[in-house]
Amino acid sequence: MQVYLNGEFMEADKAHISAMDRGFLFGDGIYEVTRVVNGNPFRLDDHLARMDHGLQALGIELSPDERARIPQLHLDLLEKNKLTEGQATIYLQVSRGTAFPRTHAFPDPAVKPTLFMTAAPFKPFTELHAKGITAITISDVRWSRCNLKTVNLLPNVLATNEAKKAGVGTALMVRDGVITESPNANVFGVIDGVLYTYPVSHYILNGITRMTVVEMARDLGIPLCEVAVRDTDLSRLSELFVSGTTTDVQPIVTLDGAPVGDGKRGPVAKALQDELLKRFEQGH
Amino acid sequence: MQVYLNGEFMEADKAHISAMDRGFLFGDGIYEVTRVVNGNPFRLDDHLARMDHGLQALGIELSPDERARIPQLHLDLLEKNKLTEGQATIYLQVSRGTAFPRTHAFPDPAVKPTLFMTAAPFKPFTELHAKGITAITISDVRWSRCNLKTVNLLPNVLATNEAKKAGVGTALMVRDGVITESPNANVFGVIDGVLYTYPVSHYILNGITRMTVVEMARDLGIPLCEVAVRDTDLSRLSELFVSGTTTDVQPIVTLDGAPVGDGKRGPVAKALQDELLKRFEQGH
Repeated sequence: MQVYLNGEFMEADKAHISAMDRGFLFGDGIYEVTRVVNGNPFRLDDHLARMDHGLQALGIELSPDERARIPQLHLDLLEKNKLTEGQATIYLQVSRGTAFPRTHAFPDPAVKPTLFMTAAPFKPFTELHAKGITAITISDVRWSRCNLKTVNLLPNVLATNEAKKAGVGTALMVRDGVITESPNANVFGVIDGVLYTYPVSHYILNGITRMTVVEMARDLGIPLCEVAVRDTDLSRLSELFVSGTTTDVQPIVTLDGAPVGDGKRGPVAKALQDELLKRFEQGH
Repeated sequence: MQVYLNGEFMEADKAHISAMDRGFLFGDGIYEVTRVVNGNPFRLDDHLARMDHGLQALGIELSPDERARIPQLHLDLLEKNKLTEGQATIYLQVSRGTAFPRTHAFPDPAVKPTLFMTAAPFKPFTELHAKGITAITISDVRWSRCNLKTVNLLPNVLATNEAKKAGVGTALMVRDGVITESPNANVFGVIDGVLYTYPVSHYILNGITRMTVVEMARDLGIPLCEVAVRDTDLSRLSELFVSGTTTDVQPIVTLDGAPVGDGKRGPVAKALQDELLKRFEQGH
């Protein structure tokens, strides 16, 4: 597998960074994962706009040249890994770079950020999309800047492990009595025919697939309310699903051991899944 | 500078890790910084007990051999860097190791953790200890497992940057109306002759210097109450200071632009500073 690191393509096992990289010492960086269908990175502009916002929020500055090369680097990575047909994902990470001595403060003057990118073949979870998955609710212990897609991902890692230990497919995180997100996806619920989801704020990451679901709901005439599902309303849900770059629209049919609605994928999830497939084919 | 990485000593600029190390991709690891006085790592057992607790909480398992070598590695690093006289700090980080493909879940089976250690000469901030520093209060945006000394340090990095932008020495973080910590130290305040500090909980990192201050206060007969200082009580403070491995006992004499007490180092801070110096000399 060919990866990209700081200006060069190389085999993955040759991709080394300094142990003094602030990505390693502080989790001081941001990332993006972009879905690729037949060589086309889906909604790449949206991913890169979010990346730019994250870099600005963290005060990390890519050189204008390097920033300008990023869209082409996505295509080059696909080419080099023979991933221009079928499906793939591209991972991109920017850290603040390598600085010593280690100190919390931003290096002054700034150092060159580290830019790392990988591409991998991807197989959609088609069977799970039809059958649905199980989930548990757990406490959302994350910080209050979840809108930034940073590599400070330990709470997400630990939540994923909680789900695995419980023998379920994912965990839905609850903060202040409402469902926020899963460790790697946004959450939508249907109550009385209305689609609910946590509003854009500092407490969720506004996923690109979430944006797509919101647009699709509007286009399909599905009533949407950007209000979070309360944990006291879980028994009222007729449908529940997560949305994400690798999960797509993924129904949750059992939550904390109880069936959601009739325990099967519902019509809203199905309609959004079909529409998402169309948009993947259209490329936008 | 000689550093230690995964079983070998090497020059710092040769210390490279895989870009697929989970420390880099997820901030999936823990760290310790230990103060060294004349070749003696101060309270190393306490640091390593905290490290063990952190590793256990994250489900990271060092091999028993490697774990057993860590105290000696501290001494070897000092030797190799000619730091057996005077003062120094030793940085230690353990990440979950390198795993591909990238996925939130713990690698199964587990991979070998990455162990990275550095040593650097250290000069105490003696002048600032006498003169005091300035600070601002800011919102504590961290997650709710602050008791774990993980490398998910972005909120601490950003808070340090806020302080720097404001032209002050540090930032005191406020959560739910009380002062929790600074980005790299615990916080103590004196009101009516009583020393207050945030109690041990999930919302603070229980610093080794904090433990030492608590013990010294008891030994010196300073009344101590492990209750946090409320942000509505700041004007009642006669003294305010932070405690940490590199800050020692560091008075804050101006907070949010207003003097704390009479705007000078107070007697409680001075007594604790003197006692801490004694304990450094005694080695425990």
